[in-house]
Amino acid sequence: MSQNDRAWERREITGFSNPTVKYLRNLREKKHRKREGKFLAEGLRLLTDARECGKLPETLVMTGKRDAHPLLDELEAAVADAGGEIIETTPNILTKITGKDNPQAVVGVFAEFDTSLVSLDRSQGPIWMVAQALRDPGNLGTMLRTCDAVGAGGLILIDDCADPFSMEAVRASMGAVFTQQIGRSTWDEFLPWLRSGSGQLVAASLRDAVDYRGAPYSAPCFILVGNESRGLPEAYEDECDLRVTMPMKGRADSLNAAVAGAVLAYEVLAKLD
Amino acid sequence: MSQNDRAWERREITGFSNPTVKYLRNLREKKHRKREGKFLAEGLRLLTDARECGKLPETLVMTGKRDAHPLLDELEAAVADAGGEIIETTPNILTKITGKDNPQAVVGVFAEFDTSLVSLDRSQGPIWMVAQALRDPGNLGTMLRTCDAVGAGGLILIDDCADPFSMEAVRASMGAVFTQQIGRSTWDEFLPWLRSGSGQLVAASLRDAVDYRGAPYSAPCFILVGNESRGLPEAYEDECDLRVTMPMKGRADSLNAAVAGAVLAYEVLAKLD
Repeated sequence: MSQNDRAWERREITGFSNPTVKYLRNLREKKHRKREGKFLAEGLRLLTDARECGKLPETLVMTGKRDAHPLLDELEAAVADAGGEIIETTPNILTKITGKDNPQAVVGVFAEFDTSLVSLDRSQGPIWMVAQALRDPGNLGTMLRTCDAVGAGGLILIDDCADPFSMEAVRASMGAVFTQQIGRSTWDEFLPWLRSGSGQLVAASLRDAVDYRGAPYSAPCFILVGNESRGLPEAYEDECDLRVTMPMKGRADSLNAAVAGAVLAYEVLAKLD
Repeated sequence: MSQNDRAWERREITGFSNPTVKYLRNLREKKHRKREGKFLAEGLRLLTDARECGKLPETLVMTGKRDAHPLLDELEAAVADAGGEIIETTPNILTKITGKDNPQAVVGVFAEFDTSLVSLDRSQGPIWMVAQALRDPGNLGTMLRTCDAVGAGGLILIDDCADPFSMEAVRASMGAVFTQQIGRSTWDEFLPWLRSGSGQLVAASLRDAVDYRGAPYSAPCFILVGNESRGLPEAYEDECDLRVTMPMKGRADSLNAAVAGAVLAYEVLAKLD
């Protein structure tokens, strides 16, 4: 698209010391994301997924040197139409922003979504995932991706979890950060919220548990997964309506948190579907 | 344990420029691991798992400042008994070796295992995982961990995969790198090996596939999982004895590779068990 065809201006940034570059770069860090209420998502595929879910970036940052792509043209037009800003910059500056040696040709800046429990609509899906003190952003993104695959309502993050708006979590979610509802709360806030409506709380556990296979799951089913190293606190397990156990044939007594959640979610889906 | 109780010598290393430090540090890189045929495993829990599986490090590197621990004493004695070397060093040098800011107090150097197909005993488990061009060492380690959990025989890595002996894969495997058989080969070598004995090759696929739930799995069942971005080549899918499909209720048409493998492996286990 030539300059003459466009009804909007692109802002050009060519200097590393431009304050916008620093601002964007800082969004890789949690404290800056929290203060600004913004996050970064990288790549045309992710941004197209977001657009198709009705989520547009407030700012779109593109390299000047890029292959022409109709989806990128559509994205740029949609962002501009919505009053967003279009920034054109160099590949080196995009590398500085994303921290990746080979950044994709486009990055979007999004306003963080409301993650309060009251914003969640539990009727949106028969399955919910609930992660407690999940530390790994890759696991978090993978759980969002699994949520999308099983048609879940969303992911609720309990206690001190990784940031769902980190670049790594957003990337691992493969776009599910835009399709899934995300909640964040403490356990003490979560329990009353859960009990204020319908919902079955289920955890994988070794204590007083039934076989996960064919267990009496009911919708909406909230699948609780614990921290990568410590698992769930006993007091949290005690609050569950159903404790299930998965076969462990080897030396280990646990699975990767995202894997455990997924195996359970697919079993629940088979029962509820 | 005081010096006087020990029947073996500890070699003390206090200088950053000691060639052994460089040698150990280099083992974080694939090319050096390949040349030396050695790899690193970090942490008392992992090394204890290894010992209980009959795998001892050739060299044990410990920090001088560490909490006394009976398992560490047992480990040290076992390594010394087997003729291994014990090195005592500083936390800073251990940081340099492992590349982690807060390294655990002990690191072991192991000889890489034989990963040729002829070394594999397919009768060792009813399930095998086969990963094709799996690029992420965390996914690879997670798959090993799942293999252990379902009582699999092992993991076979096809084409250009991440290195199962990288620190990240070893860590993510949670010790399963020591319990599971690991094979590495090209597709062209793998197929004749597979067909030279009994074995059903199964892939998750969207083409010409049956529901993964209750599909006619048979042992030994080889679960084939494709590359994180591209999935399996069509020609590889065509060679499968069974193509199964998992529900995808959301926008995405795929799961994380380690997650897909695990959901399938647990379904196979339920059928075969």
